[in-house]
Amino acid sequence: MKLDKNLNILIVGLGLIGGSYAMGLKKRGYSVCAIDTNAASIDYALKNKIIDVGSTAPDEDLIGKADLCIFALYPHIFTNWINENQHKFKSGAVISDVTGVKSCIVYEIQNKLRSDVEFISAHPMAGKEVYGIENSDDQIFKAANYIIVPTDKNTFNAIEICKGIGETLEFARISSLPPKAHDEMIGFVSQLTHVIAMCLMTCSKSEHLVDYTGDSFRDLTRIARINENMWSELFLLNKNALLEQMKKFSEEFEVLYKLLEADDTEGIKEKMRRSTERRALFDK
Amino acid sequence: MKLDKNLNILIVGLGLIGGSYAMGLKKRGYSVCAIDTNAASIDYALKNKIIDVGSTAPDEDLIGKADLCIFALYPHIFTNWINENQHKFKSGAVISDVTGVKSCIVYEIQNKLRSDVEFISAHPMAGKEVYGIENSDDQIFKAANYIIVPTDKNTFNAIEICKGIGETLEFARISSLPPKAHDEMIGFVSQLTHVIAMCLMTCSKSEHLVDYTGDSFRDLTRIARINENMWSELFLLNKNALLEQMKKFSEEFEVLYKLLEADDTEGIKEKMRRSTERRALFDK
Repeated sequence: MKLDKNLNILIVGLGLIGGSYAMGLKKRGYSVCAIDTNAASIDYALKNKIIDVGSTAPDEDLIGKADLCIFALYPHIFTNWINENQHKFKSGAVISDVTGVKSCIVYEIQNKLRSDVEFISAHPMAGKEVYGIENSDDQIFKAANYIIVPTDKNTFNAIEICKGIGETLEFARISSLPPKAHDEMIGFVSQLTHVIAMCLMTCSKSEHLVDYTGDSFRDLTRIARINENMWSELFLLNKNALLEQMKKFSEEFEVLYKLLEADDTEGIKEKMRRSTERRALFDK
Repeated sequence: MKLDKNLNILIVGLGLIGGSYAMGLKKRGYSVCAIDTNAASIDYALKNKIIDVGSTAPDEDLIGKADLCIFALYPHIFTNWINENQHKFKSGAVISDVTGVKSCIVYEIQNKLRSDVEFISAHPMAGKEVYGIENSDDQIFKAANYIIVPTDKNTFNAIEICKGIGETLEFARISSLPPKAHDEMIGFVSQLTHVIAMCLMTCSKSEHLVDYTGDSFRDLTRIARINENMWSELFLLNKNALLEQMKKFSEEFEVLYKLLEADDTEGIKEKMRRSTERRALFDK
């Protein structure tokens, strides 16, 4: 189900993801307004026809007209924003987000939100190693996952609208997970991989190796270029799940270290076979 | 300098790399013979005009005519082959290889080789996640590194011929490293990355996560599909260098674990900045 064409949509936060949402929605004929404290971002979005109307302030009029508000802010800015501005929402408005961690934020926002406004959380698993509205690109959603993260408090109607965002932006796969399962999954497939890529870059002096690195090293460290403000916040907000995943990885790494130290060819081959079999599932 | 067009070239071992060498050399007008114990590989290579002449046995005549022999065999098979067949080499022949580890093999072969034949070692840093002559493709060298690994025993003439192989096959970069520096580098940029990819696949049950994995996870585990016979041998032959690199990585991983555990935002950001700066060097 696509979103109702008559919805007034407000995007709060015009970074890479907020900008790409705005671009994708406006291209498909929706009316898109945006708020961002950075005047240059609003100017860029207006000039490039990524939004219809923009403001650098939490404008009462703009917020009051929106049927659907999508927040693309850092988590702590998002929660502060709700504290300060939730009285401006239209009664019956649905709000959603793009935050990469969930347990720490979904319940808090749902608990403090006005009872006539509903928050339904979502995570578009898309991104780039660059950021800012200038790098916006709604094509990044075409191969990506869109995860709806509902709780007991959510209504069928709001979940359908949230799903409608994902369908309208043409995500490759749309699914649904509870907050805790979402955070465990993200701790493994996204955060642990970023930790590993970082450690590969920082564990040894590697500048003199630039000329020798092939595809393997480059693939494993592509995501080592990391926005430290955003990712440190996401790591810390998902600390327990991430530490748990790091522990599992580190124990497995230690097992392999010991197999190698003991010249255990059969043990090493067994790990290689399991790794190959499992990875093959991901190529289907 | 390209190789002399009149050289008789013999490739021993028609797997992915041996086959790609043969293909690239024959395309450029060289006469290429090959030996492989697998009759199907020889048949395939003849049928697809990857070689001119082939044999499943270490044919005295074929070996005796070769000016340049390139070995693309597993390390232990390579050393056994030299023991059993070196009396068949033409006097003055140059032999080279494609082996991924060096200290353990280069000195051994140079020490036992007939004094009228010279071994100059090289490592083409190219590959695929598939193997066998059927997957041969000389285009894999175009973006790859070719490393010449000479010792004190090598002559200028043999080093030039070895370099000529890399130039003829149009590798992107040709460089030279002593055996020990080569093995340290490989322990880091290639073997450690394979260990990490494997551990990511084996540390947790991940089958249920197939639908959620984005580019990050897929990039970091692409090389987790690994030929266990070849790689277990390469790991064990480079054991000390690889264990050393694993230790460094594991210590760095532990540092990050502790920073996260202690909510040390500044410490985490500092690591992220260093990682980002270093990785940027690799994108130039």
